[in-house]
Amino acid sequence: MSSDEIVRAVDYSRVFNQAIDRLHAEGRYRVFIDILRNKGMFPNARCFAGHNGPKPITVWCSNDYLAMGQHPKVIAAMEEALHDVGAGSGGTRNIGGNTHYHIDLESELADLHGKEGALLFTSGYVSNEATLATLAKVLPGCIIFSDELNHASMIAGIRNSGCEKRVFRHNDLEHLEELLAESDPQAPKLIAFESVYSMDADIAPIAEICDLADKYNALTYLDEVHAVGMYGARGGGISERDGVADRLNIIEGTLGKAFGVMGGYIAADRTIIDVIRSYAPGFIFTTSLSPVLVAGALASVRHLKASSEEREGQQAAAAQLKAMFRDAGLPVMDSTTHIVPLMVGDPVKAKRVSDILLAEYGVYVQPINFPTVPRGTERLRFTPGPAHDEAMMRELTDALVEIWGRLEMRRAA
Amino acid sequence: MSSDEIVRAVDYSRVFNQAIDRLHAEGRYRVFIDILRNKGMFPNARCFAGHNGPKPITVWCSNDYLAMGQHPKVIAAMEEALHDVGAGSGGTRNIGGNTHYHIDLESELADLHGKEGALLFTSGYVSNEATLATLAKVLPGCIIFSDELNHASMIAGIRNSGCEKRVFRHNDLEHLEELLAESDPQAPKLIAFESVYSMDADIAPIAEICDLADKYNALTYLDEVHAVGMYGARGGGISERDGVADRLNIIEGTLGKAFGVMGGYIAADRTIIDVIRSYAPGFIFTTSLSPVLVAGALASVRHLKASSEEREGQQAAAAQLKAMFRDAGLPVMDSTTHIVPLMVGDPVKAKRVSDILLAEYGVYVQPINFPTVPRGTERLRFTPGPAHDEAMMRELTDALVEIWGRLEMRRAA
Ligand SMILES: Cc1ncc(COP(=O)(O)O)c(C=O)c1O
Ligand SMILES: Cc1ncc(COP(=O)(O)O)c(C=O)c1O
Repeated sequence: MSSDEIVRAVDYSRVFNQAIDRLHAEGRYRVFIDILRNKGMFPNARCFAGHNGPKPITVWCSNDYLAMGQHPKVIAAMEEALHDVGAGSGGTRNIGGNTHYHIDLESELADLHGKEGALLFTSGYVSNEATLATLAKVLPGCIIFSDELNHASMIAGIRNSGCEKRVFRHNDLEHLEELLAESDPQAPKLIAFESVYSMDADIAPIAEICDLADKYNALTYLDEVHAVGMYGARGGGISERDGVADRLNIIEGTLGKAFGVMGGYIAADRTIIDVIRSYAPGFIFTTSLSPVLVAGALASVRHLKASSEEREGQQAAAAQLKAMFRDAGLPVMDSTTHIVPLMVGDPVKAKRVSDILLAEYGVYVQPINFPTVPRGTERLRFTPGPAHDEAMMRELTDALVEIWGRLEMRRAA
Repeated sequence: MSSDEIVRAVDYSRVFNQAIDRLHAEGRYRVFIDILRNKGMFPNARCFAGHNGPKPITVWCSNDYLAMGQHPKVIAAMEEALHDVGAGSGGTRNIGGNTHYHIDLESELADLHGKEGALLFTSGYVSNEATLATLAKVLPGCIIFSDELNHASMIAGIRNSGCEKRVFRHNDLEHLEELLAESDPQAPKLIAFESVYSMDADIAPIAEICDLADKYNALTYLDEVHAVGMYGARGGGISERDGVADRLNIIEGTLGKAFGVMGGYIAADRTIIDVIRSYAPGFIFTTSLSPVLVAGALASVRHLKASSEEREGQQAAAAQLKAMFRDAGLPVMDSTTHIVPLMVGDPVKAKRVSDILLAEYGVYVQPINFPTVPRGTERLRFTPGPAHDEAMMRELTDALVEIWGRLEMRRAA
C-alpha cells in the first residue's frame, strides 16, 4: 500500500467532526457560559458571553450551596497560606508535596466522619475513581454492587477496576438483596452508592443498605459529595444525620461544593486509607492539592462543624422555593433534599428555557441534559442558598411561569 | 450457608493488611515527610516529622523547578482573584463553573503552543487519563503506540480506553517503526510519548517520531509536563525548542511543575478540543479548577513567555550540580535535561541515604522507588533551581560523598 493510500485510510478530522455533529443533531452540544462571581455578593455575578462587557446576573445553579467559597474565614485562611508557603505544593504527596496543611485537613476530615483516617485527592471525581478502581484490584474476585444512578466518577472507577459489576435499581433494597443473594458467598463484595442524589434530589436508605451489607458480608462505599457540610449537626453528611457513619467502611466527599473550595477525599479505617494511599495511581502520580486550597478547605470544614446557621438558611430557602414552584403549578420533582429540580423532559426545550432566562431575565440556571441525566429526563436544577431572598424567588417563579406559557410546556398535575 | 460462615468467607481486614505488609517486606512502604516551604525563601523549608517543632531544611526535590510558586506576580494574581471572585468555582465547567479566568488561560495556553485551542483539567494526571481514554473511544479500532517509560497517567488513560496498545522500547525509533509497519494500515493510530522523561532525564526524538507518524498516518500525543515553562524561547517546551509544535496533534502539560501552581491542560486543533470537552467524563463531571489557581497559572504562563532568566538560571544550576557530582565520583545518570538523578539500584539503600540526609544534614531529597521507576533502578532525583547556590551544592555533594562511603555504595567508574 502506498503512503497516499494509507493517508486516505483514516480521515481523523472527519471522525472528530462527526462526533461533534452528533451532539448538535441531538440538541445537546454544550456551550459554556462565561461568568465571574462577585465575591461577597453571591448569588450575584457577571456574565460576559454575548454581551458588550459584563452584565449582572443571578446564579441559581451553583454547588457552592452555602456560599462558603466567599466566607471571610475561608478567604483569610487562603490568603495566609498563599503568603506563608506560596501557590502550589511543587510535588506529589510522596515527593515534596506533603505539607502540614494536608496532614491537618486529613485529621479534621477523619474526625468529621468519625473514622481513623482520611486521604485527600485533587477532586471528588478522582477520589471516587481512584478508590473504587484500587479497592477492587486489592480484593481479587470482588463484585461491586452499584446503584443505577451513581455518578460518572464512581462508574469510571468501577469500570476501570475491571471487576464484576451488578447494577441495582435506584435505592431499591429488594433488588439489591436479590443481586447479593445470588452472588458467590465467598466473593468479596462492595456496595457503592450515594447519600444525596443531586439530580433527583432524593436520599438513599443508608441504614437498610448497611443491614444488607452485614447480612452478606459486603463492604460499603458511600459518596456524600452533595451532603458533606449540608447535613448532620457538624456537617458530616446524611450518615451523620442518620447516626450510621460507623457502619460505613468508606465515606467519600468533596471540598468543592458545600465547602466551597476544590478537592476530594475519603475517610475510612487506618488500613483502608493506607492501602489506597499506597496503591492508587490517581493518588500517587499527581501533584498534590495546592496548600492554598487545603488551607481554605480546613477553615471551611472547621467553620461548618461549629455553625449550623448556613445549613438552616439553605434548607429554609429550598423549602420556600419548592413551595412557590408548586403553588405556581411548575413541575417540581419530588425532593427530600436541598436541591430543587424542575422536569422538562426534552434537551432542546431545557436549553431554550435556560437561554431565555439568561437573556431576558438575567437568571442563570444551566439545563441538565444527557449524559448527566438519562435521555428524556432533561431538567432545570435550582440550588437556592441562604443568600437567595424571597424577592429573587418571586422573580424567578414569575419568569418561569411566563416562559412555560410562552413555550406551551407541560404544567404540574 | 449460615451468616456466620459467610462472615468467615472473606476477611477484608486480613487482605488489606497483607497488601500493606508486602510493601514493608519490599522496603518500599512510603512515609510522607511533613514540610512547609517558606515563601520567598525557597528552597528553604520547615520539616515537622520526627522533630520537636519545625526544623529548617533545604528542599532538593521540588518540581516547582523555577520557584514560580513563590513569584510575586503569581501570588498577587491569586490574591486578586481570591478577593474578586472567591475560593472555588462552585461547579463543573458546564454548570456554573466556567469563569472568565478559565477562558483567558485556555487562550494563553493555545497561543503558547501555537494551537487553535486548549482545555483545562484539574491536573496533568487527569488531562492525560481523560484525553487518551476518550480519543481512543471516539476512534473505533484505534491502536495506541506507547513509549515503555510513559507516565502512569498516560498508561491509565490507554488502559481505560480499552483499545489495543503496543509498547515500544524507550525512545527507540526502529522499534516504533517495526510496530507501526506491522499494524493494520486501515486502523486509526496514535503515538503517545513524553518530551522530557523526568526520572531518566532524557529527551524524545520528537521530529523523528513525527516523521513516522506522517508515514503511517498516526496522530501524535506529546506529554510536555516536565518541559513546559522550561524549554523554548517562550517556555513552550521541547516542541517549541525543536520547532516541531505544529507537527504534534496534541500537546499536554501541567500547571503544577514549572508554572508553580496546580492543574493540567491539552492544546490541539479546535475539533479535537471540542471532542474532548464534549465527551471526556474526567473533564465533564468534576468541579472546575478554582479561579484562584487559574489566575495564578495565567500570571505564571505570561511571565515565563516573556522572561528567560528563570530558565537560564535553572539550566546553569543543573549543569553545575552534575559537574560537581561527576567530579566527586558519584554515579550521576546521563542527563540531557534540567534533572539530576543519582543511581542507587536498591530501595532500602535509597531510603537510607535520604533518611540520613534529612536527619543529619537537613537536606530533603525523596528516594524514588518502584512503582515510580522499575525495580532495581531505585534512585535519588535532584532538581536544582535558580535559588540553589554554589555553597548549597558543595554541602550536598560533600554529604553524599560521606554517606556513600559510610554505606559502602558503588561509585561511578
Ligand atoms: C455524586 C458526585 N460525586 C462526585 C462528584 C465529583 O466531585 P468533584 O466535583 O469534587 O470532582 C460529583 C460532582 O461533581 C458528584 O455529583
Ligand atoms: C510525565 C508526567 N505526566 C503527567 C504528570 C501528572 O501531572 P500533575 O502532577 O499535574 O497531575 C506527571 C507528574 O505528576 C508526570 O511526571
